[in-house]
Amino acid sequence: MITLKELAQMCNVSPSTVSNILNGKTNMSEETRNKVLEAIEKTGYRPNFFAQGMRRQNNKCICIIVEELLQFSTPPIVEAIMGVCESKGYRTILINMSMYGKWKRIGVNYGEQKSLKENTSPALLEAKAMRADGVIYVAAHDHVIDVVPEDYGIPVVFAYGHSTVNQYKTVLIDDFGGSALLTRYLISRGHKEIGVISGKKDNNHAIERLRGYKSVLAEYGLEYNSDLVLYGDWERESGKECTRKLLAMGVTTIWCMNDLMAAGAYDEIVSEGLIVGEDISIFGYDNRDISAYLFPQLSTCELPLEKMGQTCAEFIIKEIEDENFRKQPAEVTKIPCELVLRESVV
Amino acid sequence: MITLKELAQMCNVSPSTVSNILNGKTNMSEETRNKVLEAIEKTGYRPNFFAQGMRRQNNKCICIIVEELLQFSTPPIVEAIMGVCESKGYRTILINMSMYGKWKRIGVNYGEQKSLKENTSPALLEAKAMRADGVIYVAAHDHVIDVVPEDYGIPVVFAYGHSTVNQYKTVLIDDFGGSALLTRYLISRGHKEIGVISGKKDNNHAIERLRGYKSVLAEYGLEYNSDLVLYGDWERESGKECTRKLLAMGVTTIWCMNDLMAAGAYDEIVSEGLIVGEDISIFGYDNRDISAYLFPQLSTCELPLEKMGQTCAEFIIKEIEDENFRKQPAEVTKIPCELVLRESVV
Repeated sequence: MITLKELAQMCNVSPSTVSNILNGKTNMSEETRNKVLEAIEKTGYRPNFFAQGMRRQNNKCICIIVEELLQFSTPPIVEAIMGVCESKGYRTILINMSMYGKWKRIGVNYGEQKSLKENTSPALLEAKAMRADGVIYVAAHDHVIDVVPEDYGIPVVFAYGHSTVNQYKTVLIDDFGGSALLTRYLISRGHKEIGVISGKKDNNHAIERLRGYKSVLAEYGLEYNSDLVLYGDWERESGKECTRKLLAMGVTTIWCMNDLMAAGAYDEIVSEGLIVGEDISIFGYDNRDISAYLFPQLSTCELPLEKMGQTCAEFIIKEIEDENFRKQPAEVTKIPCELVLRESVV
Repeated sequence: MITLKELAQMCNVSPSTVSNILNGKTNMSEETRNKVLEAIEKTGYRPNFFAQGMRRQNNKCICIIVEELLQFSTPPIVEAIMGVCESKGYRTILINMSMYGKWKRIGVNYGEQKSLKENTSPALLEAKAMRADGVIYVAAHDHVIDVVPEDYGIPVVFAYGHSTVNQYKTVLIDDFGGSALLTRYLISRGHKEIGVISGKKDNNHAIERLRGYKSVLAEYGLEYNSDLVLYGDWERESGKECTRKLLAMGVTTIWCMNDLMAAGAYDEIVSEGLIVGEDISIFGYDNRDISAYLFPQLSTCELPLEKMGQTCAEFIIKEIEDENFRKQPAEVTKIPCELVLRESVV
């Protein structure tokens, strides 16, 4: 097979120009770039990334390992990671572990460590085999992920879930802050008795969001009434059921901890002949696509998925390139959520 | 670094057992599997996929190149590909070209070949550098993709978009069949004057879907009235605008060529004080998540994304493993769409 040097000679450019083109840089004329790309195609030249990895420290490759590509939060995080990496000259490769389907099949909690480890271990090996310089692990929700060994050897950053191994930096959403924001908003609109449809009781998002809600009630001297907090399972149908109970208790303002349960709240309210945004106020969480298609459009709290992805990518590149940064104690960075106000609150 | 043979000796198993574990097979006891995985972690053993690729024909790795991970259709296709590959012992690696963002930034048609080639060439090189046995190219909509050279050297299968290079097999959705199905359904419900909100005129999906609609009108001896066909741009707002015009023409049945434009149709109908599913019938296309959250829920035509992904994966594995199949003339396989009937049609 033709070598990089031979290819460069053939195109009448320096080997580093060919190398730059292969690494996605654009600091050369388009003519040169096209000439080299055509020669690569014609000759069937293949860059030997393995040999490159042996030759130099930095292989300019980041491996993204995702728990579940089908979770709504994953593609926007990944796309943002890839955008930053591309702009900084890093290639990215994605490995999807499809954990939600597996967890469902084996009937365990979403976050169970044994099955997670069975899937993460080969992915981590593969990342090394590809000579990735770093790994970004993208969880499908916030749970503990203790599956990366302490001596893994290349930098790892966690997104949307956290490791208890201390050396790994983690980027999470600020659930506490988001729910505090929305609770303050609801109180500012005169809503003082707010029914809550929580996600599952032991879920980190639900725990943090409830903490935020309680803290703002305290801030305003309002009493916390645990009877007004019902627990759904994040699905639409559970939102409908919990809403039925809350309406029976005379509640007229309901905050649902995700948009799917808010859709279920709409279902119940409509079936009772009531009008959302007039008779009853509903607030969601996540700002999923569907929230703008409910009628009336749902006011909700947006997850900072893009910002989360960008932050992880910046962290991993800094870990790779800056030894001092790598040695800094791992911190948890929480990215603030923002309110998206539409028409579902009186 | 420790070799596979040394690792096997250390664990008291055969090298092929270690190899099977690395390749994701599960035909060994859990005890053995855990023992080997622990030893791999402890020793930091890295499988040398590059060397493996040199040693054997089949590296058991498929590279998925996607045009746009954020397009709603991409994650379900990819997840289905990965499911089949995993069940057949193939690893998968994904490269995302994020083309929609790039096309938007440079202001060209979504499908423009030059920018596509600039992004596909490095991805194709990378697939080879990783010693992938085959590539599945997942388009973000049906357009021509002439960016894989004829002499690329490893099998390629196209999903959701097509190459005019003859040797490559292609899997598309059956847009003609889907729109024929829904047109027949609307006629069977007594709707004979059906307004159409098409996507962009030169788009393959729009062309095929209109063909299906026309052919069923002819089948029933109904006249095709081009005045009833308006062209939107696939976005919600254009659905609203076209609906305003169709309502002014007295139309009471509207088929929108995607669910987003159907949502725009709902917007206009509600603002006119009319009721979808009572005064006006609306039919969509795609069965995106949002269609079940519109009120009333939208009847639509489901894209067979999972089946499309499975079919591609089966094709690429057959191309890799069966030389006769590889030599068969490339065909276009169209996967049928199915109607999802909800509440938006009288």
